[in-house]
Amino acid sequence: MERNVYIQNTPLDQAIDIFMGQLEKRGYFQIETETIDVLGSINRILGSAASARRSSPHYPASAMDGIAVKALDTFGANESNPVILDKNQYIEVDTGEYVPRSFDAVIMIEDVNFQGEQVEIIKPAVPWQHIRSVGEDLVAMDMIAPSSTKIGPYELASFLTAAISEVEVVKKPVVAIIPTGTELLDQGSEDMNPGEIVESNSRMLIAMCQEWGAEALRHDIVIDDRIRLREAVEEVKDQADMIVICSGSSAGREDYTSSIIRESGELLVHGIATKPGKPAILGLIDDKPVIGVPGYPISAQLVFTLFARPIIYKKLGLPFPSDSVIECKVSRKVASSMGVDEFIYVNTARIKNNYIAYPLNRGAGITTSLVKADGVMHIERGNEGLEAGSRCSVMLRKPRALVDQTLVSIGSHDISIDFLADILQVQHNKRLISTNVGSMGGIMSLMKNECHFAGVHLLDTDSGDYNISYLKKYLNKTPWLLLTLVNREQGLIVKKGNPFNIKEINDLPGPEIRYINRQKGSGTRVLLDYLLDKNSIKPSTINGYSREEYTHLAVAAAVKNDTADCALGIYASAKALNLDFIPISEERYDLCILPDLLDEQDINLLMQVISSTIFKKRVIDFGGYNILNTGQVIYSNNI
Amino acid sequence: MERNVYIQNTPLDQAIDIFMGQLEKRGYFQIETETIDVLGSINRILGSAASARRSSPHYPASAMDGIAVKALDTFGANESNPVILDKNQYIEVDTGEYVPRSFDAVIMIEDVNFQGEQVEIIKPAVPWQHIRSVGEDLVAMDMIAPSSTKIGPYELASFLTAAISEVEVVKKPVVAIIPTGTELLDQGSEDMNPGEIVESNSRMLIAMCQEWGAEALRHDIVIDDRIRLREAVEEVKDQADMIVICSGSSAGREDYTSSIIRESGELLVHGIATKPGKPAILGLIDDKPVIGVPGYPISAQLVFTLFARPIIYKKLGLPFPSDSVIECKVSRKVASSMGVDEFIYVNTARIKNNYIAYPLNRGAGITTSLVKADGVMHIERGNEGLEAGSRCSVMLRKPRALVDQTLVSIGSHDISIDFLADILQVQHNKRLISTNVGSMGGIMSLMKNECHFAGVHLLDTDSGDYNISYLKKYLNKTPWLLLTLVNREQGLIVKKGNPFNIKEINDLPGPEIRYINRQKGSGTRVLLDYLLDKNSIKPSTINGYSREEYTHLAVAAAVKNDTADCALGIYASAKALNLDFIPISEERYDLCILPDLLDEQDINLLMQVISSTIFKKRVIDFGGYNILNTGQVIYSNNI
Repeated sequence: MERNVYIQNTPLDQAIDIFMGQLEKRGYFQIETETIDVLGSINRILGSAASARRSSPHYPASAMDGIAVKALDTFGANESNPVILDKNQYIEVDTGEYVPRSFDAVIMIEDVNFQGEQVEIIKPAVPWQHIRSVGEDLVAMDMIAPSSTKIGPYELASFLTAAISEVEVVKKPVVAIIPTGTELLDQGSEDMNPGEIVESNSRMLIAMCQEWGAEALRHDIVIDDRIRLREAVEEVKDQADMIVICSGSSAGREDYTSSIIRESGELLVHGIATKPGKPAILGLIDDKPVIGVPGYPISAQLVFTLFARPIIYKKLGLPFPSDSVIECKVSRKVASSMGVDEFIYVNTARIKNNYIAYPLNRGAGITTSLVKADGVMHIERGNEGLEAGSRCSVMLRKPRALVDQTLVSIGSHDISIDFLADILQVQHNKRLISTNVGSMGGIMSLMKNECHFAGVHLLDTDSGDYNISYLKKYLNKTPWLLLTLVNREQGLIVKKGNPFNIKEINDLPGPEIRYINRQKGSGTRVLLDYLLDKNSIKPSTINGYSREEYTHLAVAAAVKNDTADCALGIYASAKALNLDFIPISEERYDLCILPDLLDEQDINLLMQVISSTIFKKRVIDFGGYNILNTGQVIYSNNI
Repeated sequence: MERNVYIQNTPLDQAIDIFMGQLEKRGYFQIETETIDVLGSINRILGSAASARRSSPHYPASAMDGIAVKALDTFGANESNPVILDKNQYIEVDTGEYVPRSFDAVIMIEDVNFQGEQVEIIKPAVPWQHIRSVGEDLVAMDMIAPSSTKIGPYELASFLTAAISEVEVVKKPVVAIIPTGTELLDQGSEDMNPGEIVESNSRMLIAMCQEWGAEALRHDIVIDDRIRLREAVEEVKDQADMIVICSGSSAGREDYTSSIIRESGELLVHGIATKPGKPAILGLIDDKPVIGVPGYPISAQLVFTLFARPIIYKKLGLPFPSDSVIECKVSRKVASSMGVDEFIYVNTARIKNNYIAYPLNRGAGITTSLVKADGVMHIERGNEGLEAGSRCSVMLRKPRALVDQTLVSIGSHDISIDFLADILQVQHNKRLISTNVGSMGGIMSLMKNECHFAGVHLLDTDSGDYNISYLKKYLNKTPWLLLTLVNREQGLIVKKGNPFNIKEINDLPGPEIRYINRQKGSGTRVLLDYLLDKNSIKPSTINGYSREEYTHLAVAAAVKNDTADCALGIYASAKALNLDFIPISEERYDLCILPDLLDEQDINLLMQVISSTIFKKRVIDFGGYNILNTGQVIYSNNI
């Protein structure tokens, strides 16, 4: 058995210095160019300054539709004494046409009175009027664009005009990507076996390469076999300017990447002090960079961005693009170890005059954090993390305009919030981001002015009403209004056919039924605790009471996938995953809106969309909802 | 003979309303979608929200390399009383591997002591530790991205992870582009005939379509023939969502575009009150938009941007992108007619704390203005233009960061400034833009703090020295320093073989020699006037004294192309165009730098590049220069 526990924990800046320094030393960044047809040059980078091969116009050209004349022949013309020109004294010219040497002015068509073959002129022409002189646009040898210019539509037009048919451009660096792993599949399906994974990292890295201006070559998936991986490296190394080996960079049994680099070239770094991204490998084969990219998507994305991106830009002769940075308040405490550079993916939005950064789920396996992230917070080595509310810099990955048109919902989770987001996006170009922290978490967020509204479904166990008593208690200093989004069914979610024959809360206690709970502060948890109390059931008798998930779909998925047998949740989740559902009660799911934090037009927009037929139809079609109260304002505290 | 003088001069906003209104009315903007392989979906727009088909992970997965155990078996383990697990009590798991139902925790490899087939544990495992629960990343049915999302690398990774193999995306609108004109060539060469033009507009529009997310179909060039153009429209109209006819939209003899639209569909607008862009044509054929785009490149670009871009975005279901706008001071007076919407292409740069907009050459035929432009100033109808120094808004087309790292040189023209720009760009990521307004124009610009430095070569006819006396006179309140860029030869530029046998200034007077002059305030003009005066020649005796061009290359090009016979200019220009040159004098070409407007490091950078071997070599290789004084500080006024 072969195991390599990494020896190193190289600090990020050192790892970059070692890697770039070695490449520099070996002359890797020498710019290579090639000459290509100008028609295929869009988005390529000029390898040398492009200069006009020919002037434009390359002949005296008419700037108008009209007639070319000798100015001298028209002198003295006026309305009472028009000048008549014979057919040999003028020629008709259209815009852009050649004005022969015997003429020195053009009269526009609107000022010409045709009379058979003669023309009548009532205003003299000034010499050279309406004639574009040779080289007016470009003179032969003029520099049109300096080296390193990215060729766009206008450069192309100008090159063609200047008779440039070929251009010298920088060669695109070729990145060979080798996905490794016996568990990997090229295509996914709904009935994959446990342990099988769709290979997605190489596809992501290819698209990133293309974004940065490099070309990517994907090798077929290589199973975990030292000889096969070595063959794959041999196959690609001559065609590529960079070799990327996906996965296989951790300390697992099948991690051959580092030893192959050591044998075929030089291993520079194994293990960097970043989070995520720790198991990265950096090396050289034939003086070309080799990067071993960890298997978790976020680690892969980060390692590739940190190490491949600067190499590609440098190899293209381009300056490293400066990230757009905004100053934010971080919405919650972010822990960080002193010894590592941490990268935290965040959503960002503007709440009145503050930009807030909302850290996303930090698990390295969470592709949804990659999709959602508007930017990245970098906590440098030597720092101890951030307290909630403290200032931080976010490197934006999405346009600032998008951040500025974002509505933020923090609180309880409901699928209807996704429907709302979709409609707002498509019909009104408004982005709605939502974070699921449960109803109480939503109220806390409202108290800190960190969201525009919160989804809440908190049962007042004394009155049987929902939400209002909680909001009155916690939000007593700020105006708020409460709007019903949906009414929905809560019940017990169990496997198809209900194998344990669960019928009510009283069936839950005991070791054989594995329950999966929602987190504290969620409305569903309040409901469960209320029901347990009402039925005099001790939480400790429920197997799994302490195992918490954050969404309705997550608990349903646990039941579906047999890591649990029962959960309390909404009908919609049970239906989505084709599970059985035992109704327990109907509850009201409201939005609590802070009018001080929203423009009036955004509040109106929100109400309009919630009351729209299209929203209601999507909710009803999904099932488990009742829309009788949807869009009704339940309460406003009138402060 | 067929002529159509346009009847209309429709205001821009009306033209847009008519066009978009008609399309809206005919249901043109109905979003059409298609289902494609997810692997080909990069940069496409989601036509409906994408939801997970399968949870990820879809099985309980190890989050570490290690062993899977039953937590219960490890209870009580500590350093002095390790727990020994038999081979049936654990299995080895790598990160991402399936943890079978009989186990409920993973212990990381670093904490495991292998002893033959047994393992020793010195710390108890907590139930569910290091196990990624089903759906931790994504639960089946979770919305990954709403409709209208542009699919990037991370969306792709997430889709693959969620077993999505096909996605519904918005169909790319297909734009058919028909270039028309008998004078057009597909490829240029150095020896084209007068009147021949390389067809560049369709290539530019195709690249613009691609930038906006549409697909373009280019028809072959159609000669000016009504039947042929009509056939071309018939050929493309069923495959296309939009038809664009390039050129032929003015009042020339061969303008069939408008009449063909009238016959085959509906002509909505012919002639809009914009500058440039006036001869635009808007119409409908088979309820699809048809745009007749004027032939001048800037008009074509503007008309296509004003009318095609919003249609393409709307057809893609995307919000119209908001332009990034900066507030500038305009560097010179800009005239505008009350009755039209004017669009003025500008360079922009930051001079200390002011952004300055430098209007570029407004000729509609100037492709170089398109290439150079950082943005566009829109002077709305009803306004009378801008005074020099007044405030204006510029819609940026290039990144703000580029604008911020720009050096501005305004003054006399010299090819060595282009070399400087190229080296600054490639080696130091600094952009240098230069405007040629002659030496005196440069000094005026320095006085207004509108440039960082100016190229000057003004002969003091009393002392025989250059520049210093002028600068002392005009720049007496601000610090400046004078640095020599090059010494260069001035002389008479004549055709190859010198057909008029010109030998000195005294040979110029008389009607047979067509002279072409430089503009007032240019150093070369000062030199000419000095020479004329010294030789007692009256300017009025020089044929062409009043015909002015703004650069050395432009006057040389006029001689080359036989619209003039002689010009005073630098050797470099004569050599570039293979003309003869009669030396008259050597002059000093200096840069006058305002240190208050530049960071010290930029001044140092400038001096370093000017003194560099690479710069000097390029100057010498070009010819007609002497670099003995290059980089020397000649004078500093020490204020």
